[in-house]
Amino acid sequence: MIDFITFCDYVGTFAFAISGIRLASAKQFDWFGAYVVGVVTAVGGGTLRDVMLGATPFWMLQSSYLIISALALLFVIIFRKYVISLNNTFFIFDAIGLGLFGVVGIEKTLQFGFPMWVAIVMGTITGAFGGMLRDTLINEVPLIFRKDIYALACVLGGLVYYACIQLGVAPSLTQSISAVSIFVCRILAVRYHISVPVLKGEE
Amino acid sequence: MIDFITFCDYVGTFAFAISGIRLASAKQFDWFGAYVVGVVTAVGGGTLRDVMLGATPFWMLQSSYLIISALALLFVIIFRKYVISLNNTFFIFDAIGLGLFGVVGIEKTLQFGFPMWVAIVMGTITGAFGGMLRDTLINEVPLIFRKDIYALACVLGGLVYYACIQLGVAPSLTQSISAVSIFVCRILAVRYHISVPVLKGEE
Amino acid sequence: MIDFITFCDYVGTFAFAISGIRLASAKQFDWFGAYVVGVVTAVGGGTLRDVMLGATPFWMLQSSYLIISALALLFVIIFRKYVISLNNTFFIFDAIGLGLFGVVGIEKTLQFGFPMWVAIVMGTITGAFGGMLRDTLINEVPLIFRKDIYALACVLGGLVYYACIQLGVAPSLTQSISAVSIFVCRILAVRYHISVPVLKGEE
Repeated sequence: MIDFITFCDYVGTFAFAISGIRLASAKQFDWFGAYVVGVVTAVGGGTLRDVMLGATPFWMLQSSYLIISALALLFVIIFRKYVISLNNTFFIFDAIGLGLFGVVGIEKTLQFGFPMWVAIVMGTITGAFGGMLRDTLINEVPLIFRKDIYALACVLGGLVYYACIQLGVAPSLTQSISAVSIFVCRILAVRYHISVPVLKGEE
Repeated sequence: MIDFITFCDYVGTFAFAISGIRLASAKQFDWFGAYVVGVVTAVGGGTLRDVMLGATPFWMLQSSYLIISALALLFVIIFRKYVISLNNTFFIFDAIGLGLFGVVGIEKTLQFGFPMWVAIVMGTITGAFGGMLRDTLINEVPLIFRKDIYALACVLGGLVYYACIQLGVAPSLTQSISAVSIFVCRILAVRYHISVPVLKGEE
Repeated sequence: MIDFITFCDYVGTFAFAISGIRLASAKQFDWFGAYVVGVVTAVGGGTLRDVMLGATPFWMLQSSYLIISALALLFVIIFRKYVISLNNTFFIFDAIGLGLFGVVGIEKTLQFGFPMWVAIVMGTITGAFGGMLRDTLINEVPLIFRKDIYALACVLGGLVYYACIQLGVAPSLTQSISAVSIFVCRILAVRYHISVPVLKGEE
């Protein structure tokens, strides 16, 4: 089970880093700048969570995350012409990452003794804040708050997690159900263009 | 007295959240994105302060702040057509929030054993940094550094706080005088268009 | 030796603050806003490092950094017409700051018990993140990831540091060699326009 979770973690990190690197390349960043944007996208959400929990940022405790981001950079450099044809694959990877990051954020926050509502907020930050930082760095209005359901999927996954706990579902099953519900919610949102309504401005 | 302070705290949170939500609506954010911008505007300054002080961010200890921000979102959705006619009211609320947040930042920093000059900086961050984060998120140059006196009012309030302490004024009176001086400074600055001079660029 | 290091620290802080203030002036910031951008440029990298290490941000422990940034503001206000003719001087000062900040970041991280690769990352953050925050605040795409070698010089300096330690070089000499190598790398990069290749986007 641990192996499968670690695998999903790495797949998600890879997909998040790829998304940062690709957007940076569209802005003429150099290799190193693109790498930094990729790393920030991949670890930014979890870092903010850890700093607010008073924990050491997770990526400082093992080098895998920076190495996987470096592999993502290499991948984009080498397979530049084919990357665009892999859009669907990256989308699936990204949704896997979102599901796993969301649940990891919930779990870690509960372990630190915070109530469920803080855990849901932290799960959402873990999943969605990296993309927000990415868009700020490349000087764009954050996309995730304007198109299809993204961050909200983590909130829904958090509510599913809470419901499972209340119903007495076993912890490991609760984690799986919650992660899968985030994943499915994200896939359905993009497949059927389900969006949160746009907030109309004043006339 | 505690009740009145709590009341001002909630009024300020509401006004800060409203300002974030309205600016997000002008950028076509969806409801959830606008909510996030509202929350960041309301709690961003205090969160940065708490992280630098080594404290748990205040909004993680009670849910009021996220709930008030949700009420602010509901308010903007329901009363969209009338929000603009309440501009003066929101401006007063915002100034109340600025005064209270500034003093709260000063107090908390002193409680952590830091000297007065750090407390003044932290009071200013508590009051003004949320608006700075808001403008960064919606991809605009921060307004608060270019128009009328805003952040500087917190600095002045901090100096008033220091003067009161030196003159032996009682703590609760010191707090009130400092908060009111920030409030009055902000109101006067907007009423009479008092600005810090623009820094001229090189020719 | 301590005196010389402190001198370099102040020279670097001054140069970093000047770069933030000048860019803010080009965006019509007022004096206070320009000061804030100057401070963020000068202390932003070290602050992020300290927050992630779980340490109190260094500038909260002594007021020199905010005072030097205020002197930088005064300097730009008074000598506005001559600032541009000092470009080469500021560039040298900035490179001195980069070298020193990079090594300070490495040292502090090692003192907190982290491995060398974390120290190299933190040295790079200490040297380069302030400029990234500066560009985000003034709403520009970060320049340091698109032009000449900047952040990467800190990475190279970190590798030099590691090599020296492995070769048994004395600590104080290791520090000097590492700082000088960052400085020289930066100077050579600008002098001979050495850049990291731009990451080509998809067709």
